[in-house]
Amino acid sequence: MRNISLTVAYDGTNYHGWQCQPNVVTIQETLKVAVERILNHEVNIIGGARTDAGVHAMGQVVNFTTSKEIALTNLNKGLNSMLPDDIRIVDARNADPDFHARYSAKSKVYIYSILNQEHNSPFLQRYVLHHPYRLNVPSMKEAASLVVGEHDFSAFKKKDELYKNPVREVTRANVGSRGTIVYVVIEAAGFLRYMVRNIVGTLLLVGQGKIDRDGFQDILESKEREKAGPTAPPQGLFLRRIKY
Amino acid sequence: MRNISLTVAYDGTNYHGWQCQPNVVTIQETLKVAVERILNHEVNIIGGARTDAGVHAMGQVVNFTTSKEIALTNLNKGLNSMLPDDIRIVDARNADPDFHARYSAKSKVYIYSILNQEHNSPFLQRYVLHHPYRLNVPSMKEAASLVVGEHDFSAFKKKDELYKNPVREVTRANVGSRGTIVYVVIEAAGFLRYMVRNIVGTLLLVGQGKIDRDGFQDILESKEREKAGPTAPPQGLFLRRIKY
Repeated sequence: MRNISLTVAYDGTNYHGWQCQPNVVTIQETLKVAVERILNHEVNIIGGARTDAGVHAMGQVVNFTTSKEIALTNLNKGLNSMLPDDIRIVDARNADPDFHARYSAKSKVYIYSILNQEHNSPFLQRYVLHHPYRLNVPSMKEAASLVVGEHDFSAFKKKDELYKNPVREVTRANVGSRGTIVYVVIEAAGFLRYMVRNIVGTLLLVGQGKIDRDGFQDILESKEREKAGPTAPPQGLFLRRIKY
Repeated sequence: MRNISLTVAYDGTNYHGWQCQPNVVTIQETLKVAVERILNHEVNIIGGARTDAGVHAMGQVVNFTTSKEIALTNLNKGLNSMLPDDIRIVDARNADPDFHARYSAKSKVYIYSILNQEHNSPFLQRYVLHHPYRLNVPSMKEAASLVVGEHDFSAFKKKDELYKNPVREVTRANVGSRGTIVYVVIEAAGFLRYMVRNIVGTLLLVGQGKIDRDGFQDILESKEREKAGPTAPPQGLFLRRIKY
């Protein structure tokens, strides 16, 4: 059996997230249908990361196995001709037999973009959170650094979600700006559900001066979801890259 | 009477162009309805440039007169709260009594973007022409320089469009690249209809090596629309700026 991996970019606006679910359109399902039409047999599409509804990806990675002979360029082009415009195969390659898009992943890099200017942009609105009041980026950057390392991230989990182990290790958390875009980059081997968006929602409170560095630290240490800020909306979030 | 000018950005994807026409949704009409709802009287919205269906604008400029007292920031915010997300008021200011968005314009700057990589981008597809084969940018740049100056641009007009005077003066025409984006910038006081997109369509023939610099020159001098390349699609075109 051949193990094939794909790098996939998608605009998540019109999808109910990555993972197959009954009665809704998901990226995984859409991709599965296209791959199966080309290979003419059932496939199990394994995704490297489960993105939520409305979240985008520049570098989702998937793998599946097949015994079919097909040139990778033909597979790549064939899939792009079949898939809707908002899902694109960026790369197709042969993977090691034991490569598993999810379990082989060393870390995932997410980036969240905030358009920090008075008016929203007609061109970026699908890909940013619009925040019209000036954010204090250095304060946000300082607070973000507090999540680096191993922590119990219960304060930033999805409400009512239960975890045996809510401890995750964040290896990078940075806030910067470019023009009127303020971006938050977070890298970790694994995330709790909504964790990035809840951290961003709380960093926004810092950026607005509603809480300071110590307030952010208290929230993290409280492990109480109720203390943290609101979940930032999905359209600003991109799965940037998965590292193997 | 107060003369007010607005700078307007819009995503033209869902509009039949700038100008009011019966039975279709246009930017001018949409803007007019919003301004009239705020001012509570009829207005004549004068646009600086007439963009075609599907063409975008970062810096369309309009003006209209009113006797109503309204703070500019309230007008700006009020309009943005009423307008659809794909039209944004970027700036509102008091203009000189004799300012006319169209007749006062000294020049208009258009930019056309081509995504020159194998696969299209889910995020940029609404704003670029996708061209999967490598373009020769230096050749395109050299050919583009030929349109600078005063010329009869009949070769680049809209088919079957009649002009008393098809002579226009192009003051800037440049081709460059940034990453995998190839862009064409053209500036002139006035343009024939489809002129930018027809020049771009013909520059693409140069970039593909189908014609050379002399071939491009011949097309320009022939004044025959049939000799030039196809009209590049609207989604790659932006009205970047109007200079006054």
